[in-house]
Amino acid sequence: MNTNVKRILESVEKGEMTSDEALLLLKSAPFEDLGYAKIDYHRSIRQGVPEVIYGAGKTPDQIKGILSSMIENGQDNILITRLSKEAAAKIAKSFDITYYTDARIACYGETPAPDGIGKIVVATGGTSDIPVAEEAAITAERFGNKVVRLYDVGVAGLHRLLAHKEEIMTASVIIAIAGMEGALASVIGGLADCPVIAVPTSVGYGAAFEGLSALLSMLNSCASGVSVVNIDNGFGAAYQASMINHMEAKS
Amino acid sequence: MNTNVKRILESVEKGEMTSDEALLLLKSAPFEDLGYAKIDYHRSIRQGVPEVIYGAGKTPDQIKGILSSMIENGQDNILITRLSKEAAAKIAKSFDITYYTDARIACYGETPAPDGIGKIVVATGGTSDIPVAEEAAITAERFGNKVVRLYDVGVAGLHRLLAHKEEIMTASVIIAIAGMEGALASVIGGLADCPVIAVPTSVGYGAAFEGLSALLSMLNSCASGVSVVNIDNGFGAAYQASMINHMEAKS
Amino acid sequence: MNTNVKRILESVEKGEMTSDEALLLLKSAPFEDLGYAKIDYHRSIRQGVPEVIYGAGKTPDQIKGILSSMIENGQDNILITRLSKEAAAKIAKSFDITYYTDARIACYGETPAPDGIGKIVVATGGTSDIPVAEEAAITAERFGNKVVRLYDVGVAGLHRLLAHKEEIMTASVIIAIAGMEGALASVIGGLADCPVIAVPTSVGYGAAFEGLSALLSMLNSCASGVSVVNIDNGFGAAYQASMINHMEAKS
Amino acid sequence: MNTNVKRILESVEKGEMTSDEALLLLKSAPFEDLGYAKIDYHRSIRQGVPEVIYGAGKTPDQIKGILSSMIENGQDNILITRLSKEAAAKIAKSFDITYYTDARIACYGETPAPDGIGKIVVATGGTSDIPVAEEAAITAERFGNKVVRLYDVGVAGLHRLLAHKEEIMTASVIIAIAGMEGALASVIGGLADCPVIAVPTSVGYGAAFEGLSALLSMLNSCASGVSVVNIDNGFGAAYQASMINHMEAKS
Amino acid sequence: MNTNVKRILESVEKGEMTSDEALLLLKSAPFEDLGYAKIDYHRSIRQGVPEVIYGAGKTPDQIKGILSSMIENGQDNILITRLSKEAAAKIAKSFDITYYTDARIACYGETPAPDGIGKIVVATGGTSDIPVAEEAAITAERFGNKVVRLYDVGVAGLHRLLAHKEEIMTASVIIAIAGMEGALASVIGGLADCPVIAVPTSVGYGAAFEGLSALLSMLNSCASGVSVVNIDNGFGAAYQASMINHMEAKS
Amino acid sequence: MNTNVKRILESVEKGEMTSDEALLLLKSAPFEDLGYAKIDYHRSIRQGVPEVIYGAGKTPDQIKGILSSMIENGQDNILITRLSKEAAAKIAKSFDITYYTDARIACYGETPAPDGIGKIVVATGGTSDIPVAEEAAITAERFGNKVVRLYDVGVAGLHRLLAHKEEIMTASVIIAIAGMEGALASVIGGLADCPVIAVPTSVGYGAAFEGLSALLSMLNSCASGVSVVNIDNGFGAAYQASMINHMEAKS
Amino acid sequence: MNTNVKRILESVEKGEMTSDEALLLLKSAPFEDLGYAKIDYHRSIRQGVPEVIYGAGKTPDQIKGILSSMIENGQDNILITRLSKEAAAKIAKSFDITYYTDARIACYGETPAPDGIGKIVVATGGTSDIPVAEEAAITAERFGNKVVRLYDVGVAGLHRLLAHKEEIMTASVIIAIAGMEGALASVIGGLADCPVIAVPTSVGYGAAFEGLSALLSMLNSCASGVSVVNIDNGFGAAYQASMINHMEAKS
Amino acid sequence: MNTNVKRILESVEKGEMTSDEALLLLKSAPFEDLGYAKIDYHRSIRQGVPEVIYGAGKTPDQIKGILSSMIENGQDNILITRLSKEAAAKIAKSFDITYYTDARIACYGETPAPDGIGKIVVATGGTSDIPVAEEAAITAERFGNKVVRLYDVGVAGLHRLLAHKEEIMTASVIIAIAGMEGALASVIGGLADCPVIAVPTSVGYGAAFEGLSALLSMLNSCASGVSVVNIDNGFGAAYQASMINHMEAKS
Repeated sequence: MNTNVKRILESVEKGEMTSDEALLLLKSAPFEDLGYAKIDYHRSIRQGVPEVIYGAGKTPDQIKGILSSMIENGQDNILITRLSKEAAAKIAKSFDITYYTDARIACYGETPAPDGIGKIVVATGGTSDIPVAEEAAITAERFGNKVVRLYDVGVAGLHRLLAHKEEIMTASVIIAIAGMEGALASVIGGLADCPVIAVPTSVGYGAAFEGLSALLSMLNSCASGVSVVNIDNGFGAAYQASMINHMEAKS
Repeated sequence: MNTNVKRILESVEKGEMTSDEALLLLKSAPFEDLGYAKIDYHRSIRQGVPEVIYGAGKTPDQIKGILSSMIENGQDNILITRLSKEAAAKIAKSFDITYYTDARIACYGETPAPDGIGKIVVATGGTSDIPVAEEAAITAERFGNKVVRLYDVGVAGLHRLLAHKEEIMTASVIIAIAGMEGALASVIGGLADCPVIAVPTSVGYGAAFEGLSALLSMLNSCASGVSVVNIDNGFGAAYQASMINHMEAKS
Repeated sequence: MNTNVKRILESVEKGEMTSDEALLLLKSAPFEDLGYAKIDYHRSIRQGVPEVIYGAGKTPDQIKGILSSMIENGQDNILITRLSKEAAAKIAKSFDITYYTDARIACYGETPAPDGIGKIVVATGGTSDIPVAEEAAITAERFGNKVVRLYDVGVAGLHRLLAHKEEIMTASVIIAIAGMEGALASVIGGLADCPVIAVPTSVGYGAAFEGLSALLSMLNSCASGVSVVNIDNGFGAAYQASMINHMEAKS
Repeated sequence: MNTNVKRILESVEKGEMTSDEALLLLKSAPFEDLGYAKIDYHRSIRQGVPEVIYGAGKTPDQIKGILSSMIENGQDNILITRLSKEAAAKIAKSFDITYYTDARIACYGETPAPDGIGKIVVATGGTSDIPVAEEAAITAERFGNKVVRLYDVGVAGLHRLLAHKEEIMTASVIIAIAGMEGALASVIGGLADCPVIAVPTSVGYGAAFEGLSALLSMLNSCASGVSVVNIDNGFGAAYQASMINHMEAKS
Repeated sequence: MNTNVKRILESVEKGEMTSDEALLLLKSAPFEDLGYAKIDYHRSIRQGVPEVIYGAGKTPDQIKGILSSMIENGQDNILITRLSKEAAAKIAKSFDITYYTDARIACYGETPAPDGIGKIVVATGGTSDIPVAEEAAITAERFGNKVVRLYDVGVAGLHRLLAHKEEIMTASVIIAIAGMEGALASVIGGLADCPVIAVPTSVGYGAAFEGLSALLSMLNSCASGVSVVNIDNGFGAAYQASMINHMEAKS
Repeated sequence: MNTNVKRILESVEKGEMTSDEALLLLKSAPFEDLGYAKIDYHRSIRQGVPEVIYGAGKTPDQIKGILSSMIENGQDNILITRLSKEAAAKIAKSFDITYYTDARIACYGETPAPDGIGKIVVATGGTSDIPVAEEAAITAERFGNKVVRLYDVGVAGLHRLLAHKEEIMTASVIIAIAGMEGALASVIGGLADCPVIAVPTSVGYGAAFEGLSALLSMLNSCASGVSVVNIDNGFGAAYQASMINHMEAKS
Repeated sequence: MNTNVKRILESVEKGEMTSDEALLLLKSAPFEDLGYAKIDYHRSIRQGVPEVIYGAGKTPDQIKGILSSMIENGQDNILITRLSKEAAAKIAKSFDITYYTDARIACYGETPAPDGIGKIVVATGGTSDIPVAEEAAITAERFGNKVVRLYDVGVAGLHRLLAHKEEIMTASVIIAIAGMEGALASVIGGLADCPVIAVPTSVGYGAAFEGLSALLSMLNSCASGVSVVNIDNGFGAAYQASMINHMEAKS
Repeated sequence: MNTNVKRILESVEKGEMTSDEALLLLKSAPFEDLGYAKIDYHRSIRQGVPEVIYGAGKTPDQIKGILSSMIENGQDNILITRLSKEAAAKIAKSFDITYYTDARIACYGETPAPDGIGKIVVATGGTSDIPVAEEAAITAERFGNKVVRLYDVGVAGLHRLLAHKEEIMTASVIIAIAGMEGALASVIGGLADCPVIAVPTSVGYGAAFEGLSALLSMLNSCASGVSVVNIDNGFGAAYQASMINHMEAKS
């Protein structure tokens, strides 16, 4: 119950307002003022957590408008995801942003110092999965996490993966990214002792069916401790991974 | 590198074994002796974490055999999941187990005291989702977590869910379980500020397609911080939730 | 904003309660007391509208418990849908219900007199669709609608349908129920001048794919004014049809 | 039975025609003259209801031809749906049309004054759903309905939706438009007390499968009173919504 | 235009009826009396063509009722398809029927002498397809066709099929029935010089997906002159084959 | 058995060749010379039946090469299907072809006089189906059939279809072409008394799923006498229709 | 060209037959006599290769009939696959067969001594895959192969698989059998240096979709040298593996 | 266990290193040094086996980098698959490569002399399948196999296939490539006596569903000895075929 409600109640208490007037006011007050929900689901709760603008389907001008408004409201750490190189170039004329080509993310403000429990490992099956992986990695870094990148460690060359068992065994959270048969999640899930968030990618052809094969494979993982996000959703995986990697900050 | 390897090396050091003999021994040693992987992915790493037997497709006799072997090895906290009532009755004649009908889980040994960061909320959209929810809840409890059950809080009656905003806002992890349209995960994901693990269920008929509708819905959640496990996989959700709820124990 | 809130405000107004105490009370009051949502989405808003219990997956005892509670709360018009003959027989021993075998619905209380704008036509493509049609028809009648049944008027024998053009042209709402190729909805949609709610059924074999063929067909109807509900969902169609047929009662 | 038939019968009565000649004439008379079906399913039955031209796949010249013919026949309220900006520009050279870019609809003639029972609420889950929503909104307005737009009220930020509970509770019909997980229909269906027509959109990526996920989700809605139209079919939803909102005009 | 209409017109001609009275009569006359559609789509147009009762989902008593009515109306050649052995036994107590176990068809009346252009070949890939083939063969025979059965001539043993090239080359129509990969239709389509109607069957396992694989295969046949009916629809194939085999009787 | 084989046998008979030499020759002779199969499955068996070149995926030069070869072999009636306007223009520089834009077919040689039993009706649900219909119509005409075109007679405006009952009732074969819900096949199948070949089209959007909805709908037709070809396969339907319409020529 | 043809030619040579008579004879000669195809695709070409009877859908009596006929023809090594325990018991009363319960295979005659190049490894992901694996293993053994069984070596416990690297590295062919996510094929494919035949199994639940997930996963294997057979098709995998393991015997 | 481990053990044996130091060294040694997996799954094991670069999604510069590195390491037989003509042209400026347009493969170094057991037959159903076939054929040749191409031998013109029975009967391995209904694999599987690797192609339209139809068809092949690779995966088929054709080299 926020100050608005409190102020209304005080007015009633002081006799400045009747109970009927108060009832009316409470009724018409915007819901978010009552605190039943987060005003903005991207709003920073901890220090250093950025606002996020989903860039896909927005014009550079729309994005610039939102950016302005956010900056005016004092936000100094902003991510724009799924942003094309062209749109980023236009926005960069007005705002001091850093653009990550592979990740297709633009960032406003400084990358915060990592303040999580441990490190997030971002692993991919192949090199074609790297754009999704970079979306995850940059997101995780901007949310205050130390990130270890293990790219091209697909299960068909097991030695490549096993050569990094140290990183896998000591990770706080692992984001396992793979297209085609998506087996990486299960193999990592079997090696690791931490939550694994699997990201199927639309990499592949034929019976890969735009990521469906990897998605089903990951959902059926025989390893415990693996959950899955949408195809190519590097951001979503990193968002949840960051939540997990900041668990101790909560209680 | 475990004691076996160490002992071999010591034998070489002491001259009790040639390097060639040692090489042969190392080569034929069971891989798990080298420590490159977890010997048993269900093995207790923290105190109180149970062994798990996947009961589906195993005969009561097979399960009894595995139980005996585990108990002999000193394991005193064992879960048998996906176990029919009939099979449980047969096993109960030889072993001191507690059987949870809804969850279809049998437990050997005491439920450990909760030692996680916070509490795990297990929420369902309807009453038909309760068996999956109980599989999750019992699993979570046996893995050392405090569990809050919020059943039948589906989004078609939003007030039922909102009446429990307190539990949702203060949870450490939330397991959102729903069949049919699976919207619960998104609504909870929007309200909560912790990782949400969504479990689609095979509840429903017609275009529910045995859980496919809920699965797709959850994968497409517009709320950040939501990941998904297989249809009806209450155990898997609880396993990962417990990992997350014990994050601080790690670093 | 309901009386509870009003009473709290009045207490503050009268000085019987401080604003802080009121704030605390408001905060802990059950959400439904604030009126932001319907307390019970099945609650009667107009006279004569029944409560509905979804019978599938509930034991006779559970249903009897819910029935008792509803009757105690003064509800005198109750529908139990998707109820097996056996369960109905058990319930009938304790409650004065009428069971409709085809519809698999049990009713408690009297069927109300029709009070809608006009009549609801329930049409089926074949005789195998009748159980779904009866679920719709009985539901519509219990919600206070006049129902006209046009069964077995599938498009392969167009004369059967055209012989009933009168009923179709003068209907208030039409529920078009068909399996297999589901063409009935389009043909009726083309003839009628009122909303048509299409219900695909799981009738058929082979490429009918349990109703998927009819579902897709109905969603792609080239006739305007057709919307679709889930496969075999006679209840859902009738519920919305009744809402439409009672439109004038609203404003 | 129309005047043609009457005139033939009168000729027989007057002895101007033998029964055999009449039989032949009746046999070859165009079916629509017999009145068994609506001559034109888009024909205005009430005043102010527009003709509709489905623009997709028609050349500007074809559309201009149809427009000319309709205007000559005295039609003064015409909608052209699914019309590209380029085609609209070409048509605008010859006809006095208004083009709505988002809705991709061109209108000829004045928007009629609203004459429905109440107002139609058009709600969307996100901003990307707005084109479909505008197709629905413009259509509804041109069919004589008062429209309230509630855009970007997706369930992941529940407060945004709940802030508009007033509009939702007092709507005559609600068109709920959403892509991705399509949960909006269920949440609105639970809050509202009027028919809800759900429109899945092809917005999203990966497991959204071009709108399939939202479609299945909406068909499985646990809220009663929800029906569904084809993916992206804003026009179809508005057409039925208008029918419902004009129910009292019928009987 | 049938005698009813003719009689009405004659009455007007004779002055026994006014044109208004006639108009009213015509309007209320059952549509089928006007001859715009076949009164009964199974009605015999040629001599010897049987009525068909689809037995699935009908009780023995219902079937007996329909049989009685048909026989009373002078029908002496009746097929009951998809009839279980048990139901047939019950019906056989009251009616003189012949039951074909494999085909699951009961026949009333004599098999007519073949009167088609040529012979219909019914070919199957394997022995498991025989029930569907017999449904086709018995149907074709009862519709007045000479039938040649070529069973178990699947493409994996091409010599079996080629040994029957004579029958294939001289057939009037061929019904190609196969499950699994459904290649039979293409191979026969390439060899034959007559229409081939392909029937996918639900025979097979795994990726046969209940006939879907064979269905898709047959629809994609690279041989010209092949069309397809629903999975397991032996009756439908035979019905069309018989139409084709009686083409000369028409013009 | 063709002249080649005959000539070999005659040489043996005349003593010009030993049986061993003949055996060798027969063994190495191209299989098609033995007559076990049609040399060319498109080869004219009756007079006036054209050769067909499937144009998709062939370069203009490749097509010109095949054309030359066919013409040299005395073929004077050739169809090139699925040919783009651009490719046709290039071919037209060297060959005297007629190009049908809608049908995307180029023809070499004269259209033969119709010599079938009756006429083939080509009907479409909408105007967008016309390209597929024209592929069917032109093909049928070039194979020696009289064709009646009934375009835009979709079931949502039944009067349009019923106005053409005469053509439908007197057709020899009907090709029913429709996208979206594909109901046309069933309605025509119910009205007509001849074989109906249904062609689903990829017309539509959303849940039309590129013709899948219409395909399933047509396969499930409740009307007897309907078979189906691949999505958009106007050629295949016309090819089989022509076979049927020339049935009497065979026996 | 076989002796029949030779004899015909000789008759012509000797003047015992005219060339026309010979032409007629050649035309009507059964195709298989010409040797263009294998007379029986299961016929033993090498010594020791068994005949196979596919038991599913055959009655014990039918199987006994086929067995008798085969034995009379001198076949002394026969496999009956997909045979239920009950059917096997009935057959065992008349024939001296060995029944393998897990594999659901009955064998008549002695298991031949292995005569392949090397050994076939049959590996499974879990214990539930064992029935499919045993079908493969028994088949392979009866076709003259040495078989090494590696069961329950799923990728979630990599050490279990790696402990058997010796067998994997030295195998002649590997049959990799797994349900759920089917990752085993890729991991083994990456480790091995021989052909890997992957068999998806219908083991699993939910998004395993009866083996579809494993099937897609295996088809998309990122490891080279992996091919796939139908879900649960242990026999097919073993049949091809045996062919490969006997390659040297061919040339 | 490789020389590294051996050297460590020898050091311990010689007293140059303590067992603890050795333990530490073993622990940190790169996994690949232990030989548990192939260092590079494309590495030449036999002479003449090329390295393979998967060109799709790599820039010409990236490919040039990899090429340089491989050549420096002494590799003189390199394949670049899925390489566009444009990329090949750029690479050809710096490296002496041969580019195969149909196959979209570039080769560096000489094609090795065939050294397999026999010959690999590459067969296609149609001409549109040739690019996939050439990918297979070139790959097979570069891996040291004699290749026989049988193109356009689809089952609709069986004589074309049977004319090549000699090649089919004497092949060592057959790669059967087909789109649409994919029946080629079954027919060849029935004729041949060697392993058949089936490659579905994305050739076709409508219900071909981008190769899905052919894929399912091939998986369900009724012929034994057929396995399947991913849609359009000519390389994968050739890779496994080459393994099989070099079987004797192994043992």
